[in-house]
Amino acid sequence: MKLVRFGKAGSEKPGIVDADGVIRDVSSLVTDFAGDALNPRNLAKLKKVDLKSLPAVRKGTRLGSPVARPGNFIAVGLNFADHAAETGATPPKEPILFNKAPNCVQGPNDDIVIPKGSKKTDWEVELAIVIGKKALYVEEKDALSYVAGFCICNDISEREFQAERGGQWMKGKGSPTFGPLGPWLVTPDEIKDVQNLKMWLELNGKKVQNGSSNTMIFGCAHLVSYISQFLQLDPGDVITTGTPPGVGLGMKPPKFLKAGDTMRVGIDGLGEQNQKVVAWKA
Amino acid sequence: MKLVRFGKAGSEKPGIVDADGVIRDVSSLVTDFAGDALNPRNLAKLKKVDLKSLPAVRKGTRLGSPVARPGNFIAVGLNFADHAAETGATPPKEPILFNKAPNCVQGPNDDIVIPKGSKKTDWEVELAIVIGKKALYVEEKDALSYVAGFCICNDISEREFQAERGGQWMKGKGSPTFGPLGPWLVTPDEIKDVQNLKMWLELNGKKVQNGSSNTMIFGCAHLVSYISQFLQLDPGDVITTGTPPGVGLGMKPPKFLKAGDTMRVGIDGLGEQNQKVVAWKA
Repeated sequence: MKLVRFGKAGSEKPGIVDADGVIRDVSSLVTDFAGDALNPRNLAKLKKVDLKSLPAVRKGTRLGSPVARPGNFIAVGLNFADHAAETGATPPKEPILFNKAPNCVQGPNDDIVIPKGSKKTDWEVELAIVIGKKALYVEEKDALSYVAGFCICNDISEREFQAERGGQWMKGKGSPTFGPLGPWLVTPDEIKDVQNLKMWLELNGKKVQNGSSNTMIFGCAHLVSYISQFLQLDPGDVITTGTPPGVGLGMKPPKFLKAGDTMRVGIDGLGEQNQKVVAWKA
Repeated sequence: MKLVRFGKAGSEKPGIVDADGVIRDVSSLVTDFAGDALNPRNLAKLKKVDLKSLPAVRKGTRLGSPVARPGNFIAVGLNFADHAAETGATPPKEPILFNKAPNCVQGPNDDIVIPKGSKKTDWEVELAIVIGKKALYVEEKDALSYVAGFCICNDISEREFQAERGGQWMKGKGSPTFGPLGPWLVTPDEIKDVQNLKMWLELNGKKVQNGSSNTMIFGCAHLVSYISQFLQLDPGDVITTGTPPGVGLGMKPPKFLKAGDTMRVGIDGLGEQNQKVVAWKA
């Protein structure tokens, strides 16, 4: 299934994309894609619904994040062998984890706002995991059974805030609009091999990132298991799993986002995002 | 006012401590201490209520965290001049920020669970700020007007997870039970000078931390303003502001928590926490 949340920001309703690509309103069946609704058992029930019997959503309706605001929004750093090389970093021995602010989540096509005072706002196409049920001390072999689905995340990053302001990376990862998710939350049954998906990002029509989840150092099952050793993952929590090469910071000279730029962000089977970059305004 | 949330974990109700120390049930007036209820304007209205006319809560009723689960749960590292010296670190030029998992918040007297495989679980008495209204790009002079109140946080930390597993500190800061808050959320009008409060922690009846918020490197107003440059703070978000000297990691030799230990944790005017340490059980 391809799950979406559609409508105005802050009052999105749940929907499912039918076989013809039409979004069907499932708000009569499920309150929101959050909490227990994301349990794989409950998603399996939802899959049996006759979508054609449900109201079609008007084409062009805004999409929100396909999952409600997460509790934990965790990101993985330097998780692609080729991206680690690009930044000059040694590939990590254990996953590097940091947090994005849960309230920076937004829809896949909403504008990206360059923060006040920012000169180094950057892009990162990433594969995000959405947790479907409580996971604590989960073994790697069982880890994917805790997953509700996968979606695209553009892990927008401010490199000066992240790395030049002292301390930890989270300063550059949580500004408002820095967490576009979607368009769809795709359930695992629709993805043949999550570790072999093409991932790409176009800036102003030119492909700048062109990678694959097959160069991840730590795969999705390992990450869910690993993170669950340090904290409890709850339904709706989001783990974004790192980016392939081609970010602005890695270019010579480095290149960063400016107002008026556009991004197109895609992953095989997970759809695509289209974003416009705007300046911050009070 | 001294705000509390009382009752079983997960279904706490809001209450206020009256002049005689009796908790009054205010659930007929406010749904929960979360979101807009924490706006200082709404708290000011609540202050006018005749508490004696409201039901008294039975003595001995469990207290939960005095604020509902936060969106952002942000912690400040090495923020006390004397604690930075104790760990051998250079005092930071800008605040060091990291995240605690929002779902590690619990009541002030709930048991602390040593994580599976942990050998280095440590304590940290801290003064926590609870945000009352949306704060983004707030100036320091205005920052305290965005605060709903203050409470104690015991910023439980696993030092191996935090510092010896690669990457960022959050790995050692978010295990379940690592964020006891309370007993009370104390509104700013009841605190004469938030930068001059004694802070202490007793381990098994012996005082191990004995400091004051007057040795904070970055004060509360600065921290709210500073953090609001990097992300949007929402009502109910929690900032825990760092610990004075006397943590286990700083002892020679280092000393860590074990099952059966007890902690008593206090800050002037903010009450006290009492915790028992237990081993993790499947």
